[in-house]
Amino acid sequence: MLTFSKTLEVKSSKRTQSVDITSEIQKIISESGIKDGIITIFIPHTTCGVFINENWDPTVQEDIHSFLSENIPQNGGYAHTEGNADAHIKTAIIGNSVTIPITDGKIPWGTWQGIFLAEFDGPRRRKVIIKIIGLK
Amino acid sequence: MLTFSKTLEVKSSKRTQSVDITSEIQKIISESGIKDGIITIFIPHTTCGVFINENWDPTVQEDIHSFLSENIPQNGGYAHTEGNADAHIKTAIIGNSVTIPITDGKIPWGTWQGIFLAEFDGPRRRKVIIKIIGLK
Amino acid sequence: MLTFSKTLEVKSSKRTQSVDITSEIQKIISESGIKDGIITIFIPHTTCGVFINENWDPTVQEDIHSFLSENIPQNGGYAHTEGNADAHIKTAIIGNSVTIPITDGKIPWGTWQGIFLAEFDGPRRRKVIIKIIGLK
Repeated sequence: MLTFSKTLEVKSSKRTQSVDITSEIQKIISESGIKDGIITIFIPHTTCGVFINENWDPTVQEDIHSFLSENIPQNGGYAHTEGNADAHIKTAIIGNSVTIPITDGKIPWGTWQGIFLAEFDGPRRRKVIIKIIGLK
Repeated sequence: MLTFSKTLEVKSSKRTQSVDITSEIQKIISESGIKDGIITIFIPHTTCGVFINENWDPTVQEDIHSFLSENIPQNGGYAHTEGNADAHIKTAIIGNSVTIPITDGKIPWGTWQGIFLAEFDGPRRRKVIIKIIGLK
Repeated sequence: MLTFSKTLEVKSSKRTQSVDITSEIQKIISESGIKDGIITIFIPHTTCGVFINENWDPTVQEDIHSFLSENIPQNGGYAHTEGNADAHIKTAIIGNSVTIPITDGKIPWGTWQGIFLAEFDGPRRRKVIIKIIGLK
């Protein structure tokens, strides 16, 4: 069994936004040489998540962020007074670690499916920590 | 270390519904022969998730779907105009990949606990991609 | 490749509350001797989750629980009549299994980041089932 580690840097340009990291993740899987196993994608931040959804029609991502921002407003009378309590709540709901199978050196994505960094308190530079475990 | 891969086909009968796949998952673990490790259950769709909750009293699953549908209505004035923006948002919130330990050839479920495909845009045939990693 | 299993007991003191288990998880990783791999943290309960967020300012956790309780009230006219339907819905949304990388014998946490048991129907004693896979 082999392991492979890599840290990706991702730049967001808005306060709340999905950044498609699907092709970067595929490059890292190819670089690892691992053909059969799993990949864990972990965000070492507390106001930024990671999730899987459609990467074809950008309105899907717009709707996800609009829904979250309407229901978890930035100014919501929170106990945490740094102005980003909403971003912490959104991150708790979306999650910030995802594990996915690798088969034949690829993630078996559905059509139009990809993986996104979910920025909730940008714009910022974010890290994405990747661990791959499996067989060549 | 061994790996084992399998794709399960699951049929839903309603637009929004939980389908209990606990016993199918256990059969696949038994078939793999892996006694000690982890299982990753991944949904290669963008309007359908997977999650763990009670599989004893069916009203629990009814409440989860009612709550989501009341708060994320199908007709909500979304940017995505295919009529299933709600299903994408629900999937982002519920998640579509779960990883669970295997010990003694079984998932160490709590009482009344099981795993469900969360259909949000059915009825459809869905795929569930399983990867098991561990020791015999 | 090695595996390591452990069950942690966690006590909650309120109905809804985050319990920081970051240091207990680190002790278990150290005990395992595994330096490079992944850790899966699974909650074998249906009204209690696990998630990652800030463990520095306690108001962050207060806001997460306040938000969930305001939007998913305990008395919400649910089909499930045991008085804890809200706890099942919260658990489905927050999730009850998390997988994270281990590098150099540690989780590569961000600053102020930690992992929490999310109690939604306490006070209770809860189990947390841990599986570590990797290399020494």
